[in-house]
Amino acid sequence: MNFAFGVDIGGTNTEIGLVSEHGCIVHRKTIPTIKQDKSWNDYFLRLAKNFKEIINNEPNVNVTGVGIGAPNASHLTGIIQSPPNIAFGDVHLPSSLKKFIDLDVKLTNDANAAALGENMFGYGKKMKNFVVITLGTGLGSGIFINGELLVGHRGYAGEIGHIVIDPNGRICDCGKAGCLEMYSSSKGLLKTIKEYHKKNPEDKTINSIIKYLRCNDDVPYVDGKMLDKAFDDGDKAVREIYRYTGKMLGRGLGIASMILEPEAFIFYGGISCAGDRLLNWVRHEIDDNLLPFQRGSISILESKLNHGEAGILGSASLVFNDIKEY
Amino acid sequence: MNFAFGVDIGGTNTEIGLVSEHGCIVHRKTIPTIKQDKSWNDYFLRLAKNFKEIINNEPNVNVTGVGIGAPNASHLTGIIQSPPNIAFGDVHLPSSLKKFIDLDVKLTNDANAAALGENMFGYGKKMKNFVVITLGTGLGSGIFINGELLVGHRGYAGEIGHIVIDPNGRICDCGKAGCLEMYSSSKGLLKTIKEYHKKNPEDKTINSIIKYLRCNDDVPYVDGKMLDKAFDDGDKAVREIYRYTGKMLGRGLGIASMILEPEAFIFYGGISCAGDRLLNWVRHEIDDNLLPFQRGSISILESKLNHGEAGILGSASLVFNDIKEY
Repeated sequence: MNFAFGVDIGGTNTEIGLVSEHGCIVHRKTIPTIKQDKSWNDYFLRLAKNFKEIINNEPNVNVTGVGIGAPNASHLTGIIQSPPNIAFGDVHLPSSLKKFIDLDVKLTNDANAAALGENMFGYGKKMKNFVVITLGTGLGSGIFINGELLVGHRGYAGEIGHIVIDPNGRICDCGKAGCLEMYSSSKGLLKTIKEYHKKNPEDKTINSIIKYLRCNDDVPYVDGKMLDKAFDDGDKAVREIYRYTGKMLGRGLGIASMILEPEAFIFYGGISCAGDRLLNWVRHEIDDNLLPFQRGSISILESKLNHGEAGILGSASLVFNDIKEY
Repeated sequence: MNFAFGVDIGGTNTEIGLVSEHGCIVHRKTIPTIKQDKSWNDYFLRLAKNFKEIINNEPNVNVTGVGIGAPNASHLTGIIQSPPNIAFGDVHLPSSLKKFIDLDVKLTNDANAAALGENMFGYGKKMKNFVVITLGTGLGSGIFINGELLVGHRGYAGEIGHIVIDPNGRICDCGKAGCLEMYSSSKGLLKTIKEYHKKNPEDKTINSIIKYLRCNDDVPYVDGKMLDKAFDDGDKAVREIYRYTGKMLGRGLGIASMILEPEAFIFYGGISCAGDRLLNWVRHEIDDNLLPFQRGSISILESKLNHGEAGILGSASLVFNDIKEY
């Protein structure tokens, strides 16, 4: 049986999995993406060291390659272009990583990797037209059309997080104003909470949520379970915050629906763990954005894959399916 | 050699062409879509009568089928669903029309037909990922992904005219608010002119344009040549109106670009005849809506096919390519 490494490079952590061609993850490891590294080469050296350690622990396994999902990566060119949170500049990943480990390397966008994982092992198995929305620090999307990944002319299609839903809205890290991910992602949720706090400085629940904002490498993120509990207790502030977040997300996905008409949106990770607390608003708002005869025809689903697995499985599938040679 | 009828059903007129499999239109006719007809059957009877007349005039021609492009038509089901301006309700076109003429009938959306025409005989011949924008009374779009028409889960993909670019904006005929086509189509341009007129009732150029609004079946439309001349003469009002129309169009297509990353947008018909007077604004605004590393990478082109021909050629190609059996 053949095995491949599936790697999901995030702004904070890199998830590594050793995956069988049947989609079984036999080994899994998380390493920090940026440690004391000063360049891509430092990072690749550390990544390759981890691959070698895993291979040494699994001597009877035939590893055929490495599939990688990364932010701002082009499926077509193999280039990662100025990724947010990894300040090492552009890099041609397959050729650079090959210097450190003697394995074939394939690359795609991180959200595309999640969509490939859903396509092979999740709800996407039975669908030809679907969109995977990854709700992490930002908002990523991977799109399947007619059973194939939508990659675009130069490999940068599927940037639903950066469609502008309010040209006078919040300034995005990409330089534009009003991008969807500034409203509907951990980053967006945090901004909404802070805005609400400014308008309602006496609100007790919001005060306690602000107090318990957890910090990770200077990026504060919101305690989703705390929010969910407050929502379930009927807290008005949290209900309003979820309503707003879901409504903005639904507005963006309503626009995407007019263009793509998918069978379903599959939500993965981060604030999608709130489930129907959030997704009912999304469902409602998407419907309001469809043409009358389309309403109710697009499914809103939470991924059934375990946290972090869609990206690992999808990245590994690049090797098994040999989607693109650079 | 095989021939097929290519038919483009518009709200006002129906364009009929007899097309060779090499894309030569050997016979062309325009009939009003709604005359004294009281139902689809009345219309189909009149359409079939025209087909028979053309066939009688071309006795040596082997006609293999009829391809039709129509508003609100599903490429997948063969159903036209409550089309605007044709108040006869839903209809399964292939089976209904076959009662009146013994030819195979294929159906697609009118903008898809234009995209198929561009794909076979226009700029789209050399591209795998492009979007055709038809600027008529409304705004239609036909999308090619990886060399194939994007039809969506139920055949209603590519409704770029109905993406919401301003949720507090102009009320659209579809019932939503702020749809792109309420700004960037003949209908949208007319609204912009009237709004400008209300704010500047003394503006001489706008007064003369309002005076010369031509009426066709109670639908007034704008004299594009008059606008273009005023623009070329440096008229401030018309320049402002074109700037606004192009900016809104660019905003919508910027959003579509983030999702699809096409190689080009190809503009066809109606106000696109203004050329760079309008399209320079579109170009500029699309670029502002892309991620920094994508700027300048999407071409903005005017179709080189003659007026009305893309729809006829694309509809006929449904027969030659036998894209879908109902």
